[in-house]
Amino acid sequence: MIPVLEAVPNFSIGPDPAFVEQARDRVEAAGAEVLDHSSDADHGRTVLTVVGAPARVENAAVALAHLAVERIDLRKHGGAHPRVGALDVLPLVPLAGLSLEDARDSAHRVGNRIAAEVGVPVWFYAEASEPRGRSLAELRRGGFEALVGGVPPGRRPDLLPDGGSPDRVHPTAGGACVGARPLLLAWNLDVVGVSGETLRRLAAELRESGGGIQGLRVLALELPGQRRSQLSMNLENARSRKPFAVFEEIERRVKSEGGRVTRTEVIGLAPDELLEGAAADRLRTLDRTPPPALSSLLALHLSRRASEAATALMEAVRCCPEPVPATLVAALEAMERELLNPPKREPVE
Amino acid sequence: MIPVLEAVPNFSIGPDPAFVEQARDRVEAAGAEVLDHSSDADHGRTVLTVVGAPARVENAAVALAHLAVERIDLRKHGGAHPRVGALDVLPLVPLAGLSLEDARDSAHRVGNRIAAEVGVPVWFYAEASEPRGRSLAELRRGGFEALVGGVPPGRRPDLLPDGGSPDRVHPTAGGACVGARPLLLAWNLDVVGVSGETLRRLAAELRESGGGIQGLRVLALELPGQRRSQLSMNLENARSRKPFAVFEEIERRVKSEGGRVTRTEVIGLAPDELLEGAAADRLRTLDRTPPPALSSLLALHLSRRASEAATALMEAVRCCPEPVPATLVAALEAMERELLNPPKREPVE
Repeated sequence: MIPVLEAVPNFSIGPDPAFVEQARDRVEAAGAEVLDHSSDADHGRTVLTVVGAPARVENAAVALAHLAVERIDLRKHGGAHPRVGALDVLPLVPLAGLSLEDARDSAHRVGNRIAAEVGVPVWFYAEASEPRGRSLAELRRGGFEALVGGVPPGRRPDLLPDGGSPDRVHPTAGGACVGARPLLLAWNLDVVGVSGETLRRLAAELRESGGGIQGLRVLALELPGQRRSQLSMNLENARSRKPFAVFEEIERRVKSEGGRVTRTEVIGLAPDELLEGAAADRLRTLDRTPPPALSSLLALHLSRRASEAATALMEAVRCCPEPVPATLVAALEAMERELLNPPKREPVE
Repeated sequence: MIPVLEAVPNFSIGPDPAFVEQARDRVEAAGAEVLDHSSDADHGRTVLTVVGAPARVENAAVALAHLAVERIDLRKHGGAHPRVGALDVLPLVPLAGLSLEDARDSAHRVGNRIAAEVGVPVWFYAEASEPRGRSLAELRRGGFEALVGGVPPGRRPDLLPDGGSPDRVHPTAGGACVGARPLLLAWNLDVVGVSGETLRRLAAELRESGGGIQGLRVLALELPGQRRSQLSMNLENARSRKPFAVFEEIERRVKSEGGRVTRTEVIGLAPDELLEGAAADRLRTLDRTPPPALSSLLALHLSRRASEAATALMEAVRCCPEPVPATLVAALEAMERELLNPPKREPVE
């Protein structure tokens, strides 16, 4: 498998094409790739999907933290979504050929560099925290405003910039939450026909911490821009949780309160499982078994082929009786880093 | 782009796990990969999806033609689907990094080898015929039974086995239709609530040749096994034709005749466009814009990365001032064949 690390930086900035363009430039300069971006004015948020070889994605993530500090001033920022930083959240996701441990190691390296090189304090969350599983909700309570005058003792950053104080966040960029986690479905469902109070109760009942759906985090938001009410959600580990079944369950509960889901919005890329499940329902396939999507199997095929070809070549180099020219060895090693699982590196402590 | 050729062999054999296992073995021995297989007892048909580097898929296709002759006797075969051969249809599809011309060249090479090495007469169809665009319907009219006693003058094979006669097909394996075409959606919709006569009229109205939907081929089938009526369809060039919109149009017409579509079955792999369209409808995404599927962009990303890494390496070899050991040159060339578009070869006439 070709190793693919995904970074999903969430920036505290609404729709701004110039910002997205600059972000894309920094990502490409680091040799990684932007697969998708979403922005929302009401949320005051922009989310990128960045993929590539792990070391390149790490470099891209640090470059994006620099950009956030340069471009975003939280004192002037408004939006319904809670946030503590300009680069508010930076999850690293093992997309292919990597373990959650690899993503955790990447998160630690990136967190260290953001504190040291960018000068922004860092909290680790999810699989990157110690103990594991610290939630974003607990870090973001009260937002940037609750931190800028002085950080409460229970919320002190894990990593500080050189000369930084545990009681102070960056005056304009706050702090950054850096995490590692499995693939997640981030989605918003617009709801009509229920009061704000009912929506908040529904959200409380649906979320895992209220005894609802496992792995589901839910915010009830009332968004002024388009006069809409919204369930804004993250479904963790979307590959194992049958996300379309979760959609149906939410739709059922909204309906039983007399409301209606009018629209779904996926932030970033949709896990194939969501599309396949929804398509199986709409097309009424046998036993509602989703038809296998061509591209998911194609991605596996391509990854396998590239890795096999690279492995065979490295084997030929190892067994070569004659000396291999030095310039060629360097090029071969570059290819090995791109197409093969890199040898395990020591995690940064 | 890593070049990926797809072959979708249609065999005249119903569900038979041993046959599928043998087919898989032959494909893997040729260095290609089976991504999917479907079988249907009523149709008396088994369809494989095979992918890989072009030369490997060509070898796999010839190996599968051998297997079909060894294992299938059309004199004992029954099924609702029209067919003229044991390996009835062999389309080659340029899945990634290849043109339709490349697939046409592959079809000509494979057709020549099936006639010469396997001893089965071959017709070319779709983009592989001369003039282009010959239809399967015209080749398969009357089935194997119409050919085995003597081939009508208008249906003579394009390629004959050594010593073969244009008036004779293979006594147990018939002939093989070998073609090149873009990605196609093959699907069956089960229909209730309309008579057989109405279904046949609907099929005639829906198909392109009856002035219906462009690129749509439709058979009305009454299948005894599960007492169902079926519209069995191919939608050509599924990537540009919005396959879910076609589904909705068919559903609407069935409904206006008082019937109902109870079930959809996709043969082989579903083009992402079908799943994305159906999911957008079911999830009510904004403007029914499908959420981008992770794996379709991931496949592009992987292909790009592998090709770039391979290109950089080949460039390093070309610019290497010292001599490159011969064993290494062979391994490099093998990788080039796998991961880069191969240099244009002369088509076989």
